[in-house]
This record gives sequence, C-alpha cells and structure tokens, in this order.
Amino acid sequence: MRRTVLALIAGIALTTPALAQQELHGGATGAPQINKDRTVTFKIEAPKATEVTLRLDGQPDTPMKRGNNGLWTLTTSPLKPDLYRYNFVVDGVKTLDNDNVYTMRDVATVMSMFIVDDDKATCPFAVHDVPHGTVAQVWYDSPTLKMKRRMTIYTPPGYEESRQRLPVLYLLHGSGGDETAWLEQGRTAQVLDNLIAAGKAEPMIVVMPNGNIDEQAAPGSTAAGLITPTFNHKQWMDGGFELSFKDIVTWVENNYRVAASKRKRAIAGLSMGGYHALYISANNPTDYGYVGLFSAAITPRKEVKSTIYENLEEKIREQFDQRPRLYWIGIGKDDFLYEDNKKFRSMLDSNRLGNKYKYHESTGGHEWRNWRDYLVEFASIIFK
Amino acid sequence: MRRTVLALIAGIALTTPALAQQELHGGATGAPQINKDRTVTFKIEAPKATEVTLRLDGQPDTPMKRGNNGLWTLTTSPLKPDLYRYNFVVDGVKTLDNDNVYTMRDVATVMSMFIVDDDKATCPFAVHDVPHGTVAQVWYDSPTLKMKRRMTIYTPPGYEESRQRLPVLYLLHGSGGDETAWLEQGRTAQVLDNLIAAGKAEPMIVVMPNGNIDEQAAPGSTAAGLITPTFNHKQWMDGGFELSFKDIVTWVENNYRVAASKRKRAIAGLSMGGYHALYISANNPTDYGYVGLFSAAITPRKEVKSTIYENLEEKIREQFDQRPRLYWIGIGKDDFLYEDNKKFRSMLDSNRLGNKYKYHESTGGHEWRNWRDYLVEFASIIFK
Repeated sequence: MRRTVLALIAGIALTTPALAQQELHGGATGAPQINKDRTVTFKIEAPKATEVTLRLDGQPDTPMKRGNNGLWTLTTSPLKPDLYRYNFVVDGVKTLDNDNVYTMRDVATVMSMFIVDDDKATCPFAVHDVPHGTVAQVWYDSPTLKMKRRMTIYTPPGYEESRQRLPVLYLLHGSGGDETAWLEQGRTAQVLDNLIAAGKAEPMIVVMPNGNIDEQAAPGSTAAGLITPTFNHKQWMDGGFELSFKDIVTWVENNYRVAASKRKRAIAGLSMGGYHALYISANNPTDYGYVGLFSAAITPRKEVKSTIYENLEEKIREQFDQRPRLYWIGIGKDDFLYEDNKKFRSMLDSNRLGNKYKYHESTGGHEWRNWRDYLVEFASIIFK
Repeated sequence: MRRTVLALIAGIALTTPALAQQELHGGATGAPQINKDRTVTFKIEAPKATEVTLRLDGQPDTPMKRGNNGLWTLTTSPLKPDLYRYNFVVDGVKTLDNDNVYTMRDVATVMSMFIVDDDKATCPFAVHDVPHGTVAQVWYDSPTLKMKRRMTIYTPPGYEESRQRLPVLYLLHGSGGDETAWLEQGRTAQVLDNLIAAGKAEPMIVVMPNGNIDEQAAPGSTAAGLITPTFNHKQWMDGGFELSFKDIVTWVENNYRVAASKRKRAIAGLSMGGYHALYISANNPTDYGYVGLFSAAITPRKEVKSTIYENLEEKIREQFDQRPRLYWIGIGKDDFLYEDNKKFRSMLDSNRLGNKYKYHESTGGHEWRNWRDYLVEFASIIFK
C-alpha cells in the first residue's frame, strides 16, 4: 500500500470512520460506466493531451472528446452482453484505464476489461450469485518431459465435501497461451459456475494444462523470471505435448476424485489446443467420449516428423468406430483456419462420418469471443 | 488475442517458424532492464510528451530523459534485492509499462512490478528452480456469517502425493486487502517454496482468508461485479471476523490433511490482520502455538462494542499462562502504529511477559516491503 494513503486511512479509520467514508471513498461503481441502455461511458483525465482515442474490442479506434478540465469522454452505442477489453491511446501512448483495476493479459499485451451483462443478469462470463467452484494451480510430475509442470484445475461447488467421482474436461489453450489462458481469458470458472447452477452443465472437473512443453509454467511463474510472454517456443506442435499428455491424465486421476472412463472424459482446445485435442484423441481412440475442436489448427508443419501425426485418416476411422459420444467442431466464418477445417470436415464426410460429428459455424474469426461461446456450448452438451 | 496478430503469427508459424521467430519475437528478457550491477533501466516511447517521470517504490518521482525518436529513459542507482513497483507519468497521465505484463494491484491502484534478485539468486520473492506448492482459491461455508466465502490456500510441494498431516499458518491481510493480498503482494507462495526448499521453513499449509465480513470474496469475484476496490466496508474491526473465524478453522481442518493441535497452528496478520490475529488468539488462548503481529493495529475504535475486545489484559495473561511457543511482534520505526504497539509492549512488560515475546523492529513504515520481510522471518521460526 502507498504509505501515505494507508496511514491516513488507518489513522482516520481508527477514530472517525464516517469521515473516512465521505472523503476517501472513490465510489465503488467501477469503471467504465455501464449505462442502463448498455451504452458504455469511458473517461480519462489528460489535460495536456492533444489526441485521445479509445481502442475497444471489436471496434475501430475512436477519438474521444475533450471536455472541461482536460477530461476526455466517449459513450458507445449499446453493446451486446459480453466481455470487452480496451485501452486508451493518449498522444500515441497506450494506457490502461487507471480507474479500472480489472485487466486481462493476452500473450504480451495487457488491457483493461469490463463485462456488459444482460437485463436478466445471465451473461455466462460474469460472476453471479451462485455457488462457486475451487480454482487451483497445481504442479504435477511429467516423467515423459522430465519436469514438474503447472496446470490449473477447476473443481465444481461442493467438490471438497462430496464423495462423488466426477467427469473431467481437459481444456487446452492456443499458441501464445499457457495454463492461465482459459481461466483468465476464457472465464472458465465463471462459465462452469453459471452453467452448473442453471442446471445446464453437469458438475465436472476442468483441467487446463500448459501446452508449451519447453516451459514448466506460465511466464513469470518459473525460474526464468519475469520474462515477456511470447508466441515462440523452442518446441511446439511437434508431437511432444501429445506424447506427454498421459502424465497429466495419470496425475489427475491419481489425485482427484475422477470417474476414469471414456464416458466421463472429454478433451477440447482452441487453435493449437484444438490441434492437440484432435491428435491426442485420434491417437487414443478409446479414451475420450467427447472431443471439441475450437478453431482448431489441423495440418502439421511440414518439417515436423512424429508418429502422432501419421495416418490421421486411419486413426480417425478407428476413433469413430469406437463411437465417441460427441465430436464437436466449431469455427468462425472469418477464421484464418476456416479452409483447413473445411478440408478436415470433407475428409470426415468422405469417410461417411458426416452425421457423426456436430458442426458449429459462428460469425467472427480467431478470437476469444468465439472460444468463450464455444466453451458455453460444448460444456452444456457433454457428460449427459 | 488480437485477431490480426494471432492470424499473422499462426499463419506464418504453420509454415515458416524460423521467420516468425526472427521478425515477431519481441525479446523475452522482460522490462524493465535489470543490469548486472543491479541498476535498472526504464524506457517508454512517448514522442509527443513534454514531461515523463518515473514513480518507483521507495524513491521520489524522478524525471526521465528524452532521447532520439521520443524514447524516454532512466537508469537508477543500484537497487537492493527486492520486489519493486512503478508507474510512468506521461504529461500528468499515469501509465503502466506496456513492455511489462507483470502488474500488482494495491487496493484500487495497479502498478507495474519487477524483482531485483541477488547475485546468488536467493531473493525469497522471486521464483527459483525449486519444487512449488499448490495455490487454491476455495469457497468455504461460514454458518456464523451465513455466507459462502472465498479464501486462498497454499499447500507445500508434494502435499497431494503425501499422507502426512501438516501444520497450518493462518495469514491475515490488512484494511483494503482481501484473500488475494498475501498471495499477490506478499508473494506467500514464492516465500514458502523458497524457504521450504532451503530447509529454512517446515512444510506448512498457509490459509489466507478474506477479513472483510461484508463481502464474500475479493472485488470482481462476487456478484457485485467489477467494482472498484475500497478501504471502506460496512462492517470491519467490529469483532465479527474474530467471531466467525472458527468457521475457517473448522473448514480447513475438515477438508485438508491438517495436524489440528496448538503446536501445529499459527496465526499472523498485518495491520488490521495483526489486530485480528491479536484478538482471535487472545480469545482462544489454548488454540494458537504461534502468533505474529505485523505492524498490527491494537486499539479498537471507540464506538465498537464487542466482548471480543473486552478485558484484553486479562485475556493476554491467560493466553501467556498457556505458554505460546512464539509471540512475535514486528513493526517499522516509521510506522504510524508504532506508538500503539509500544503501549501494547509496555502492557506485556508490566505483566512480567517481557521475555515471553519476540520483538522485531525494522526500518521503514506501514508497507508491504516490511510485511514480506516479516513473513520470511516468522515462517522460518514456527513449527520447529
């Protein structure tokens, strides 16, 4: 805490809390201001600036308007209920909103964030007054990779007090992500809390591992120090993660109360994570009852040689012979992986599997907005 | 992820990763630049700015120097190994360092952060190449407060695979804090990982509850939405947290492998949390073998009436009759609670308890720098 502020507060507070409340309370309504009509008002004080723009998710950069006392403001048109990220750009310098403590990291970029809920307060990404699950960051042993690695595990409300064995969804991040991505950007805990409370999803454990096999954990959480996160890894999409994945399943099934059967085991991922989900499930055709490919990468890099990626068509036929309960493919119309996915679906169709998978085509491209929606959709179907 | 960037990266990466590495890798060394002599170099690009200053923990605001192309820089004198927070102020607008994704929230202020390690890489606040414990955010039931509430629990490396019952440290935050404060600002997981690996601390569970009884969890983690964190609470330091504390102990002892005895139970806290630790332990004289008061508030507000705060001297005598194994009081010379603590020690001394407690006086004031140090000290002594 900044010494002066705390000293002041605590000093006053011990004697005259009413005064403290009047003079020091900055207002707890949060920033930006979300209006009743779902327009959103942004403001930033920058008296010396000549140009201030708002950079908001899904919108072109928009100039803000200078008012009295150097306060720049902007009110949007009504926004649809969702999670949004934004920055201000003040005379060319990108800044967060200092009145908003809620931020979101995307690879090496940090943005301010807010949520527009709907009129009935049912936006699945917001925290509602429902029972909440536990979120743990655990370190597991990977004998295959010869390292301890971190993963994030969500257990549903009541897990600690129960004796029930639960189904598990393995949920994999994309390139540039890590074991924090689905939790932070995907809002997995909020989505699951809300779906379970509404009776739309079965209580389940969600395991979010780190898919970058050259690191033990997210940047900042290893002895490498407070390094800048990057898309680039020494090893990636080379079959190594898929080969080591059994270490994760083993650790989870040994240390959590898990229903360890195909009917109670799902795997899904976005982009690189979809690629991982595709090949892990294809190489272990009897293991996963539910598979979700969210904007999945499909085609291995040319220089990669791994048995994991050989004979995909044959493996897929074997996998479908085992009758997965759900094979779910979701992608946005504008996704740069759309064509790759189209070819993959053609391959499935040509193997007479056209009615054996579920295809979900959305608007938009390769973006978290879609992946959060796909999680809501997928989590609502599995384990039923 | 920003669509354009990801599409670019993923598109390139699937075909020519070498190119991606050369052109898109921003360098993974992190910002700011920590030099070998422990000076630190800061930089920010602000071509249109007329004044840029650095606001760094423990230093007066310092003007940065404008260089070519609008790059402002500043190199500090050598800094002692520790954790530091900072902001840039660009023409009066406070900004984070956009090249640094590591931030720290203190009540309603977000700052960039970095760590200066020592030459032997033993700074207890940095992540080192040692086994790591699990960090969980769990929801427990508080029948006393009639709500579900969140707390943060650290379990040491190997907890999951072991059958051993472990000692527990209950670690309480100050005014303006919540169940995330000790984890984030106190670096509790890093401190414990490092001390345990070095054989300086016993493996222990650390329970970090939320001491604000008018909220279920930290701001942003409840149905109240993404509200601005505040020092002000409807209920605080009124005896309610102390009265409900048994719910926390009960839940922990029911759901974790805990050695549930006085010799294996410690309680400590900073500021308001020290006040809580003081009164919880005094009102339960047979429960806590180790008590830590870090810059503790001592004197209740005049308008508060609670049996919890009555007859402190008598309760303290009874508590010391039960021979706590450690009663530790730490405070900085410049702390605004110094006099209050001095009176408390005089009271202990006048009860012939002068040699029954351990007193640690540091430099500095009411600040996290001290509380992190006190945690290192306290955690190294208890349960031995």
